Amino acid sequence: MPQPNVIPLQSPASEPALRDGMPLKHVIESQQFTVPLLMELFERSRGMEHVVARGGTLDYQNRIMTALFYAPSTRTRLSFEAAMHRLGGRVLSTENAGAFSSEIEGEQVEDSIRIISGYSDVIVIRHTAEDGARRAAEVSIAPVINAGDGNGGQHPTQALLDLYTIYRQRPLDGLSVAIIGELDKGRTARSLAYLLAKFDRVKMFFVSPPQMQMKPDILDYLDEHGVRYELESDIDRVIGEVDVVYQTRIRPERLRDADGLRRYAIDSKVVQRMKADALILHPLPRTVELDKSVDADPRAMYFRQAMNGLYVRMALLTMLLDKEPAAGSAWW
Amino acid sequence: MPQPNVIPLQSPASEPALRDGMPLKHVIESQQFTVPLLMELFERSRGMEHVVARGGTLDYQNRIMTALFYAPSTRTRLSFEAAMHRLGGRVLSTENAGAFSSEIEGEQVEDSIRIISGYSDVIVIRHTAEDGARRAAEVSIAPVINAGDGNGGQHPTQALLDLYTIYRQRPLDGLSVAIIGELDKGRTARSLAYLLAKFDRVKMFFVSPPQMQMKPDILDYLDEHGVRYELESDIDRVIGEVDVVYQTRIRPERLRDADGLRRYAIDSKVVQRMKADALILHPLPRTVELDKSVDADPRAMYFRQAMNGLYVRMALLTMLLDKEPAAGSAWW
Amino acid sequence: MPQPNVIPLQSPASEPALRDGMPLKHVIESQQFTVPLLMELFERSRGMEHVVARGGTLDYQNRIMTALFYAPSTRTRLSFEAAMHRLGGRVLSTENAGAFSSEIEGEQVEDSIRIISGYSDVIVIRHTAEDGARRAAEVSIAPVINAGDGNGGQHPTQALLDLYTIYRQRPLDGLSVAIIGELDKGRTARSLAYLLAKFDRVKMFFVSPPQMQMKPDILDYLDEHGVRYELESDIDRVIGEVDVVYQTRIRPERLRDADGLRRYAIDSKVVQRMKADALILHPLPRTVELDKSVDADPRAMYFRQAMNGLYVRMALLTMLLDKEPAAGSAWW
Repeated sequence: MPQPNVIPLQSPASEPALRDGMPLKHVIESQQFTVPLLMELFERSRGMEHVVARGGTLDYQNRIMTALFYAPSTRTRLSFEAAMHRLGGRVLSTENAGAFSSEIEGEQVEDSIRIISGYSDVIVIRHTAEDGARRAAEVSIAPVINAGDGNGGQHPTQALLDLYTIYRQRPLDGLSVAIIGELDKGRTARSLAYLLAKFDRVKMFFVSPPQMQMKPDILDYLDEHGVRYELESDIDRVIGEVDVVYQTRIRPERLRDADGLRRYAIDSKVVQRMKADALILHPLPRTVELDKSVDADPRAMYFRQAMNGLYVRMALLTMLLDKEPAAGSAWW
Repeated sequence: MPQPNVIPLQSPASEPALRDGMPLKHVIESQQFTVPLLMELFERSRGMEHVVARGGTLDYQNRIMTALFYAPSTRTRLSFEAAMHRLGGRVLSTENAGAFSSEIEGEQVEDSIRIISGYSDVIVIRHTAEDGARRAAEVSIAPVINAGDGNGGQHPTQALLDLYTIYRQRPLDGLSVAIIGELDKGRTARSLAYLLAKFDRVKMFFVSPPQMQMKPDILDYLDEHGVRYELESDIDRVIGEVDVVYQTRIRPERLRDADGLRRYAIDSKVVQRMKADALILHPLPRTVELDKSVDADPRAMYFRQAMNGLYVRMALLTMLLDKEPAAGSAWW
Repeated sequence: MPQPNVIPLQSPASEPALRDGMPLKHVIESQQFTVPLLMELFERSRGMEHVVARGGTLDYQNRIMTALFYAPSTRTRLSFEAAMHRLGGRVLSTENAGAFSSEIEGEQVEDSIRIISGYSDVIVIRHTAEDGARRAAEVSIAPVINAGDGNGGQHPTQALLDLYTIYRQRPLDGLSVAIIGELDKGRTARSLAYLLAKFDRVKMFFVSPPQMQMKPDILDYLDEHGVRYELESDIDRVIGEVDVVYQTRIRPERLRDADGLRRYAIDSKVVQRMKADALILHPLPRTVELDKSVDADPRAMYFRQAMNGLYVRMALLTMLLDKEPAAGSAWW
């Protein structure tokens, strides 16, 4: 049964993107993306790898992206800003609007967005309220990209870059994927599961301490769509047979004993039991659940994954900006 | 009698701009602006609407604006930065220098400005001390724009964009204007009154609780210059006959009863009694004094007013930059 | 005997630059710079004065500099950012990553740098740990410039711009230089002494309260290399005979009496006893040790010194960027 915190599988914001061929207006949650839209995004992302290798472009040099972070997240913000700069564009930025804003005096995000979207060609927002990005999109003149909202909220570009990282190495159809960690609360893991389910003959292994297993909303969705999955609590029983290992963090305060953390950690010994061509992903930042001894392994994809964030965000920005006239032109 | 906090009607900083034809060097207070200078600014601002509609310009692509905010004000800062970017220029920015600066160790703003103005073609400063911007201008190599100083200090670009918003809709001569709120402390309201008085046959209605009425310095000034005004405490007696309603905030802690706030608030019912072609302005952010039910009314100008901030700031930047050689060229 | 906090005179990071003709990869400490490398830097810096006078260049318009400040330092950060903008480049910036970063959750600087260096053509880092910049350089894909690390750590561009300021006015060979202040802890003073010792027939006067004198590691180094120096506690005995006065701060809490500070301060009276063509330098910010009455004296070089920071940082950026392919091109 869905909880207040879980992904709404059919939400109003998903509507527009569910009809193929419709342009993206805002990017609020990963569920908006249909397979054709994902393929368009990934093809553009591949093109962006070449754009970056050639030193970037100046094609978007008159466009302004505003990075409006109500809570700080240095790497996500810098990744979006780098993406806009590699496109030749311009960036307005606030790294901690929550601490600085007049919203503390009782103003609502809506008024700020109405004003700031008049200055911007696209807004990247990280808000502290779970529906912050959606509320912003409702009043914004410019397209809005959700860069993470609330504690358990959406962070759709993370799920997109995760999937792109796999796509760059393997056909997505027929994959077997182990998703490991605190799966009941892990929005990243949940979003990836949802996106993977759109592809054919995928099999997922959800590996976590029993009390942190994937919630019924996702499992019901997978059942309905005939997607295969298994629930596991022992990493050893799946690690040798999957194509992709998606590792995430477990907060130590949720485990009774310190040993628990170690049982779900990946180090150079665990890696030895993986397939020779397995892929190891992690959304980062990491703590003990992914040992530095793994970094040199050619199967370690997590730094490449972070770099892919640049390409996917560049691609997403162009998909939104290409559809929009320049800011101001439609004002009155 | 003037109070320490009030607008000095003839202040040293006003001097240069009072002589027509002299170039603007710094923008410290709204009183600097003569009618011809206002008209030049507003004509340039109209031009900027077209520049923005065409996607901006690259004419100023080698110029650097430094936004030096000793206290955060996200929207004012982003508005200036967007203005510089739409001109093709470059931006250096600090959003909370007060918390971050070595000035806490005893250094004065003067040394910081001498150094930073060497790197900059124009400085936009928000300082916490009431004379911060003026002190900065005294030592700066580059032009300085005051983006708000002290608590009751000047914020000249706000007054300029307020007036520009009216100018875009109505001839300024012959206007009747209701200015509502906490008028004794409201720098925005005071500055607008001062600027409006420069035009012919204007009549102002100052509407506020009696203990917060406009101070004698402004009233004496209006008397001397033969400008008509009335003091009111009842919004209903003026709302139906004015061309412009300029609403501002009243801090609840200054009113004995909660009812007081409601008596000065504007909602969809109050709007019904306004002239069909009245203009409703508000400097934003707002709380209860301006209800969201008014937003859809075509007479609501406050989001357009915020957008006009972009055009006026672009225009102001070009007026300062066009007069200056590039930074560094006159250094030694 | 070297203390944990002192400059390691022969450190691993110095190695590459000690061999002439090798390109600079990272700038971690001032000791990396040989005389030929200093001369290349200074000639480039002179060229940058002309570039700035002509309004900057767009040659580096596709390159991204990331300013990664774990502790705020507004002026150093803005100086680097202005340098990159005057080169036509682009800037990503965080002014207080220490407060904002996920590193508080246990992540190490290495992972952040690996990710961010993938987005950047050059990283300028101020870290709170003394070896922060070196650790960053070890994992960074892009060149790293140390913009100050730890409390007693290195700040190599400060020493370089100090020396450049003298170079612009005087031949460096044969100089007599008074270095005044809290010399045991003064990293700036120590680094300048080290760099000056590379030139011929230099004589240094170290002027400080006896308990704050220059530490034996530097004095031993000067002895070994036959560089002349004298230890002094009385400013009056040297002020009249030196070519350069390098003033630095003394923290009042390290002196027993308030008078002590005054005995090492420079004001207009002290300046009268200096040579007619002496140069007065100070790294700024200043407090009581350098009186504002000195500012108008033509021998006061400290604001020019700050401006030279722009030219030296521009020169350094080009030396690093010219050697590197654009980011991303060498990724896999």
